[in-house]
Amino acid sequence: MATHNIDFEPVGRRGQCQDDESLLACARRLGVSISSVCGGRGTCRTCRVQVVSGGTAAATAHERAAFTPQELEAGWRLACQARPVRDCKLSIPPESMPAPQRMLVESRLVGMTVPLEPPVRAYAVELSAPALSDPRADADRLLDAIERQHGLRCHNVDVGVLRMMPDALRSGGWRCQAAVRGTEVVALSPSSSAHLGLAVDLGTTKIAGYLVDLGTGMTLASAGAMNPQIAHGEDAITRLAAAIGSAGEAERLHKLALEAVNEMAVALCAQAGCQPAQIAETVVVGNTAMHHLFLGLPVAHLARSPFIPAVTGPVDVKARELGLDIAPGAYVHLLPNIAGFVGGDHVAALLATEPWRPERPVLLLDIGTNTEVSLTKDGATTAVSCASGPAFEGGHIKDGMRAAPGAIERLRIADGDVQYQTIDNALPVGICGSGILDSVAQFYLAGVVDQGGRLRDGHPRMRSRGEQREFVLVSERERSGHPAVSVTQRDIREVQLAKAAIRAGIQVLLEAAGCTEEDLGQVIIAGALGTYIDVSSAIAVGMLPPLPLDRFRQVGNAAGAGARLALVSIRKRAEAQALASRVSYVELGNAPAFGQTFLQASALGRYRLAHGKREAIE
Amino acid sequence: MATHNIDFEPVGRRGQCQDDESLLACARRLGVSISSVCGGRGTCRTCRVQVVSGGTAAATAHERAAFTPQELEAGWRLACQARPVRDCKLSIPPESMPAPQRMLVESRLVGMTVPLEPPVRAYAVELSAPALSDPRADADRLLDAIERQHGLRCHNVDVGVLRMMPDALRSGGWRCQAAVRGTEVVALSPSSSAHLGLAVDLGTTKIAGYLVDLGTGMTLASAGAMNPQIAHGEDAITRLAAAIGSAGEAERLHKLALEAVNEMAVALCAQAGCQPAQIAETVVVGNTAMHHLFLGLPVAHLARSPFIPAVTGPVDVKARELGLDIAPGAYVHLLPNIAGFVGGDHVAALLATEPWRPERPVLLLDIGTNTEVSLTKDGATTAVSCASGPAFEGGHIKDGMRAAPGAIERLRIADGDVQYQTIDNALPVGICGSGILDSVAQFYLAGVVDQGGRLRDGHPRMRSRGEQREFVLVSERERSGHPAVSVTQRDIREVQLAKAAIRAGIQVLLEAAGCTEEDLGQVIIAGALGTYIDVSSAIAVGMLPPLPLDRFRQVGNAAGAGARLALVSIRKRAEAQALASRVSYVELGNAPAFGQTFLQASALGRYRLAHGKREAIE
Repeated sequence: MATHNIDFEPVGRRGQCQDDESLLACARRLGVSISSVCGGRGTCRTCRVQVVSGGTAAATAHERAAFTPQELEAGWRLACQARPVRDCKLSIPPESMPAPQRMLVESRLVGMTVPLEPPVRAYAVELSAPALSDPRADADRLLDAIERQHGLRCHNVDVGVLRMMPDALRSGGWRCQAAVRGTEVVALSPSSSAHLGLAVDLGTTKIAGYLVDLGTGMTLASAGAMNPQIAHGEDAITRLAAAIGSAGEAERLHKLALEAVNEMAVALCAQAGCQPAQIAETVVVGNTAMHHLFLGLPVAHLARSPFIPAVTGPVDVKARELGLDIAPGAYVHLLPNIAGFVGGDHVAALLATEPWRPERPVLLLDIGTNTEVSLTKDGATTAVSCASGPAFEGGHIKDGMRAAPGAIERLRIADGDVQYQTIDNALPVGICGSGILDSVAQFYLAGVVDQGGRLRDGHPRMRSRGEQREFVLVSERERSGHPAVSVTQRDIREVQLAKAAIRAGIQVLLEAAGCTEEDLGQVIIAGALGTYIDVSSAIAVGMLPPLPLDRFRQVGNAAGAGARLALVSIRKRAEAQALASRVSYVELGNAPAFGQTFLQASALGRYRLAHGKREAIE
Repeated sequence: MATHNIDFEPVGRRGQCQDDESLLACARRLGVSISSVCGGRGTCRTCRVQVVSGGTAAATAHERAAFTPQELEAGWRLACQARPVRDCKLSIPPESMPAPQRMLVESRLVGMTVPLEPPVRAYAVELSAPALSDPRADADRLLDAIERQHGLRCHNVDVGVLRMMPDALRSGGWRCQAAVRGTEVVALSPSSSAHLGLAVDLGTTKIAGYLVDLGTGMTLASAGAMNPQIAHGEDAITRLAAAIGSAGEAERLHKLALEAVNEMAVALCAQAGCQPAQIAETVVVGNTAMHHLFLGLPVAHLARSPFIPAVTGPVDVKARELGLDIAPGAYVHLLPNIAGFVGGDHVAALLATEPWRPERPVLLLDIGTNTEVSLTKDGATTAVSCASGPAFEGGHIKDGMRAAPGAIERLRIADGDVQYQTIDNALPVGICGSGILDSVAQFYLAGVVDQGGRLRDGHPRMRSRGEQREFVLVSERERSGHPAVSVTQRDIREVQLAKAAIRAGIQVLLEAAGCTEEDLGQVIIAGALGTYIDVSSAIAVGMLPPLPLDRFRQVGNAAGAGARLALVSIRKRAEAQALASRVSYVELGNAPAFGQTFLQASALGRYRLAHGKREAIE
């Protein structure tokens, strides 16, 4: 077996690769991030790299399907397929890098103030120093002082706090601040220090974190980060498959999620000028897959029919047991899940948007690889999970990418030509979710694609690439010789599948509740993609029902907002639990005539759907 | 620096030792057990070894004090002092090995039956299998089944149980037995499996363990083991000093205690034909030092005046957090401590002996390196801790050893000569606690030693060894050339100090309670040494007051019995907590005229003590 030196550019990382190891495996080993939507099976193009010098073994069938002979000749390869035969210098194009990405941490929700009732409260106390005449133990001394000075009888001190308490009390001159959860002391800090909580929205792609002052309810800092599990598959299903396949991989995914939250805590504390040890409580929300991986729960039964989670109720676990480095006795609270594919993040979004308050039915959508949709009517909520796939995250789209610099995020076809806008106004490198949605909508409106989704000839930017037709958004010439950015016939099929899943899910909910699209008083669209999409485009492709635009609310990170509510209010936490157990879950596979509804919903254009029939409007 | 090969016999372990490393350090590194009462400071003789071949550096001052020139010539060395200069073969004499030792696990307490109210109960349940039409999570399914089939609403499933539950439920055909603590599921096992608890008396020297069927209250297996911390110092104070001196040493002592309990669980389960994973609750009792080391709590403030523990209240902690390998969600409950030197083991002994029931005052003693004594009168209990030192454990006694095979445990001087009995009738190698007490009592009764503790000339077995006189129990000739077993003048001083501490402690309690020795209705002597001593000898040397023998009860391992009570009865657990907070602790250093009392109590013979005065009887 031979070993070759590999140089990964532009990151500049060098390392050795054996000739039976893929370039992707080598990159992962070296910590070089390369996208991999399909998890290394050769079925997507997201891990494409260019071999600048050196050489790899002959192209595999997957690589021959992914690239034209010219591209192969130019050194383009799939990193998951290619194995080196001599030393290589590789160029990782921007679209193959999980680049720092636009993060949505803010929510546009108003009325978010709730009475402050945090589950952990801080009490400043002053203790008398021990003496031979008063040899009470440190813990007794502390508990007595809390009772005498605040009227609260605590029953125990967490063992992690016990371990640091003797020195902390003495170095603080017998003054301190005790954080109490129920009747347990979970943290001890100097008298004047801030009393903090951390709320985390652990998304499949992105993580949003919020550092909250539990004494005032104010958010002191917020930040977004990539979920580092992405290097092991961009969607949750790929990661579950990896975890099921290998205990080591399951453990790695578990650790990656924990490390990400640890790093988030450190970053937020650095922003706010405080220490992670001051964080006395953490709330984590996520979909059921992220929830299980975060807790290290087995996922085998979650990933296959009938999709059974290990737990849906709320979970409280000592942070240190998971390896989270916050206050010694602090707990992590995970909001309850609803079902296998509707998790605590949707519960948090419901908590923050309170859709059961208005009189008319309210729809809440969180669009992603899985799109969770819930309908609340007359106080009753029903939820579905739509397998919308990774198209809107850039997956399964030839030139798809996540919302990173250079992604085409807005697109219009005006006067027959393409006008687009990229994130950060960078040179175009690919298309993100809102861009692909705009593209298909514009193609349809411009007559480039028909209602059935078939690309028509006639436009100057249409061309054939092998057996497939594609619409060129940015040509090779416009990209100075880099591969063109285009939308293929297959990409349009992917968008149709994705949006049909969402539209059909909405329809199943409406029919189960005995109402129609027009009855909807509000459609709340949560999450990053939902915030950035052009609702008109979503209606134009038939993803959303053709309602007046003022009925749509794009609310931003509602899950993060809900997580913060559960952090500062035990009442909201109880409400979340009541809510989660009250929501009924509908398995789409069981819904009557779902296939027929899905088929109708795959058509492009503005139309009404009812009872599996489509009625065009305008 | 040179490296030498060392051969430790009779254990047959070989390894390398650098010439700046002591033989003791080398032995510890290699896992060879050598006693070390003083913790390696060269001030005791417990680590003596014989260099059979090879050579060590010149004897240190400590070694010259410990051995005669003849013994040094014969290769006798202190392992803590000696450093090799070439390859060596060493012989570890039996008295230097922390040998498997006589263990007392049984208690002689009667009336130990209490109503069975274990804190963890087992519920056999049968679940329906999930389906698309019933996609409840595993945890919900389990909690619903427990409620429906047993009327108990549990609120959560421990995260460790969640991790194993999906596979366990499926492999068990949806039948299982859930162990519930409060409203939390802490273990899950096949329907028919035993529901077990573990009670541990974690002594400084010895560990006693009991495996209990929580369904019946029966003790299924019991065993004794050495506390492996012994290799790091035979008494608690030495270990505390080591832990304070180095964080690594503190961690090591913590881990050793935990490993010992793990090994105990494995051994007991092997006896009973079951698995540690079936142990759903553990109760640990120990003195405050063992308690703190077991939990990994800091001990710096416990070891110096005013001797403040981190905690005295009961502690409940997840077993897995400590690294105890029992049921995934099981807790360890530690009985409350009373003060820095009166721990949960004394609380357990009080719980098991119920001294507050009788009408006349009751004294409870647990004799050891520290002797805890409590006096209960009219329902009020007061406790002291007497620094009796390691003499009764064989420490600070020239030929002292613990109660291992070959230890002289009984001794009489009849017709002017010595008659003795050794443990297991093995060849005599040293003297254990009951043997040294018998020796001094017999010396006094035979006139070999006076009331002040001075050895008199005149007996044929008296001789001088350097500047010190000694009474030879077994001569070199009787030991076929091995060093003689003798009791020196200094040994007698050690016994006087030890027994004076105990007698003075008793006296302080009596005076504080306003009563006299004669008022005592019962003197309960708990623990191994207390069980094996001859009470007449203890009275003859003035360690115990001269009461009629029928007032003494030698009850065996009362702490272990109390730990079992707390394991099977939450009522007894609550009683222990009430008890611990009710006991008043008297710091002997604060007691009036303690010095005078101690001085009087150091005299040998039968006498009454009152108000610092001694009144001889007979």
